[in-house]
Amino acid sequence: MKLLRVGPVGAERPALLDEDGVTVRDLSGVVTEIDGALLADSAALERVRAAARAGTLPVLDTAGLRIGAPLARIGKVVCVGLNYFDHAKEVGAEIPAEPILFLKAPDTVVGPNDTVLVPRGSVKTDWEVELAVVIGRTARYVESAAAGLSYVAGYATSHDVSEREWQIERGGTWDKGKNCETFNPLGPWLVTADEVPDPQGLTVRLWVNGELKQDGTTAEQIFGVGEVVRYVSQFMTLYPGDVINTGTPAGVAMGQPEPKPFLREGDVVELEVGGLGRQRQSLKGA
Amino acid sequence: MKLLRVGPVGAERPALLDEDGVTVRDLSGVVTEIDGALLADSAALERVRAAARAGTLPVLDTAGLRIGAPLARIGKVVCVGLNYFDHAKEVGAEIPAEPILFLKAPDTVVGPNDTVLVPRGSVKTDWEVELAVVIGRTARYVESAAAGLSYVAGYATSHDVSEREWQIERGGTWDKGKNCETFNPLGPWLVTADEVPDPQGLTVRLWVNGELKQDGTTAEQIFGVGEVVRYVSQFMTLYPGDVINTGTPAGVAMGQPEPKPFLREGDVVELEVGGLGRQRQSLKGA
Repeated sequence: MKLLRVGPVGAERPALLDEDGVTVRDLSGVVTEIDGALLADSAALERVRAAARAGTLPVLDTAGLRIGAPLARIGKVVCVGLNYFDHAKEVGAEIPAEPILFLKAPDTVVGPNDTVLVPRGSVKTDWEVELAVVIGRTARYVESAAAGLSYVAGYATSHDVSEREWQIERGGTWDKGKNCETFNPLGPWLVTADEVPDPQGLTVRLWVNGELKQDGTTAEQIFGVGEVVRYVSQFMTLYPGDVINTGTPAGVAMGQPEPKPFLREGDVVELEVGGLGRQRQSLKGA
Repeated sequence: MKLLRVGPVGAERPALLDEDGVTVRDLSGVVTEIDGALLADSAALERVRAAARAGTLPVLDTAGLRIGAPLARIGKVVCVGLNYFDHAKEVGAEIPAEPILFLKAPDTVVGPNDTVLVPRGSVKTDWEVELAVVIGRTARYVESAAAGLSYVAGYATSHDVSEREWQIERGGTWDKGKNCETFNPLGPWLVTADEVPDPQGLTVRLWVNGELKQDGTTAEQIFGVGEVVRYVSQFMTLYPGDVINTGTPAGVAMGQPEPKPFLREGDVVELEVGGLGRQRQSLKGA
């Protein structure tokens, strides 16, 4: 299933994308919200599946309808840094011996087509298309990468917007450049794991002003999804509704020759993970 | 006012500590929860104040009553690293030119006397008593340290439990050693800002198994509370119900001679910030 949330900011309603890829149906008569509680509730998910199969859910008019992030009440967003061989190389970093982790606050998450704000004083706002993993069961000390996959409820396209000066040159941890307002567009859909048989076989692409900048595949990940879940669960407990951004392939602005093409007001970024839907953001000043 | 939340995990009710420092009164007839929405709602806060003054709120029997964290639905926990001159010195770090920031996930927050879990495989679990700041108004690009203080709804005692090997020796950011389950005891109370006229004049102390380990004051902070709020707001938007852990003074295990006395199952940690109440945690294996 492809689950989504549509409507104004803060007043989104749960919805379902039909298999035709076009028709959006109202789920608010079946569930109140798409969140960790739903993902952890197999009976509620089965009600959604049954309603989807029946084909009787009300069709929503999508003209002018905003798409929100496909998940409400996100508990935390764990991010993996330098998780593609080519991206580590382009920024001059060594291949990590184990995953690099950092956090984004859930309040950075916005809809897939919402405006992204270039923070005041920023001169190095950069893009990063990523495969996001959504957790469906509480995960503590998971024993194997294969078991790790069983905690995944679904997947989504994610944009890990990053301010490189603040991430790298201002002391302390990467978090300082990863948590600006609007810095994590997510969606359009949460695609349930049953529809993504191989999370290591997805294209990951991003365009700036129509020009292809990132063109990778999750096959190039250093640490795959199951291993990432296993690894993270050794350090922190993962709960239903937590999100993991699994890293970005080569092609970010930071990896380009000078003058590096960092994002500015007026730029348009489009990105997609294969089968998980496409995002489009306009950049504006904060 | 001293606001708190009492009851079983996940079923806490809002409460008030009387000025006698002993009597706990039920606030659930006045407000549904102590959270960012309450702190941002001056009319609701005034109702609480009026009820407190009237002295008519029902008294709760505190025998055996668990105290939870004094704030629900925390959006994010921003932490300042190396923010006391003596602590930076004891760990051999330079005095930061600007605040070092990192994040803890809100799901690490537990009650002030709840069990703290030593993570599996941990050999360097450490303590850090801190003054926590609770945000009451949305803060973006705050212009001065003086203005920064006006966004603070209240203060609390906070324990920024830290796994030093994972924080420092395992690659990437500090977040890996800061986000283990139960790693942020908070409370017992949220003390409203009007009762803390000078947040830079508070004692900050911690004991392990009855032995005083940290004995500082917030006067020794490199960056004071108002400046921290101003600074953070340049990089991320602060919302009502966000928490900032403002750093720890000297005396952590990492700063001691070998063999460093890291925490183990069976240890008991007590800590307090002057006027904000005392915590007591037993350590157990995860």
